[in-house]
Amino acid sequence: MELTHIEHIGIAVKNLDAAISYYESVFGLRCYAVEEVKEQKVKTAFFMVGQTKIELLESTDAEGPIGKFIEKKGEGIHHLAFAVKNLENALEETESKGIQLIDKLPRKGAEGLDIAFLHPKSTFGVLTELCENKNNK
Amino acid sequence: MELTHIEHIGIAVKNLDAAISYYESVFGLRCYAVEEVKEQKVKTAFFMVGQTKIELLESTDAEGPIGKFIEKKGEGIHHLAFAVKNLENALEETESKGIQLIDKLPRKGAEGLDIAFLHPKSTFGVLTELCENKNNK
Repeated sequence: MELTHIEHIGIAVKNLDAAISYYESVFGLRCYAVEEVKEQKVKTAFFMVGQTKIELLESTDAEGPIGKFIEKKGEGIHHLAFAVKNLENALEETESKGIQLIDKLPRKGAEGLDIAFLHPKSTFGVLTELCENKNNK
Repeated sequence: MELTHIEHIGIAVKNLDAAISYYESVFGLRCYAVEEVKEQKVKTAFFMVGQTKIELLESTDAEGPIGKFIEKKGEGIHHLAFAVKNLENALEETESKGIQLIDKLPRKGAEGLDIAFLHPKSTFGVLTELCENKNNK
């Protein structure tokens, strides 16, 4: 598998607007996109820091994955996403090494990326996402 | 404040050797350094992914910060570290904006960086570190 960079870091927040203000005013970052991902029951906000995006995630439904995460663990870092060169191959390779996949096949995530999650039980507690941006090819 | 990139992502693990094997075998990363930071009661292992380091943290003492974190929350992402251009100024600016600091003045962290932590109560649940690498100047 070839990881090129950390694509984004997903952070669960209760109030997207308040968190956007914090990242803009304290760190001088600029929120360049807000997008709702209905399938995941989240509203997302993006910032660039060097090569990597900060993806803030507010739940639109207490029963969605981010709603449940915040109820259980509170606000904080939710997942870590690596950019890979060939997602289908990367998933096959990962599974062949005994890692449990949440998504056996790529699906569409925010910003039109192809994404898939690995299960934190197999990844030392880190909810890990693999992403491929086929839009730039 | 000027953030240049995400300097590293700190991940708390129970067994450093097992976690190093996982990042090497599954993601093809190479652990380029292992370092004990006695003051923080941790042993650390580093990998580069693009601009950003993965810093694995194994506690050397159950009463240390990583030992307590794992007892409370389990293994997983522990903190997020931004590289800044002038750490002293960044801390002053952060505090002036009402953010609670854990370290009011820079101290030495792993790899000889100057570091300081912001309190997760002020940062939407994300234990946030600011780092400056004065060795490269």
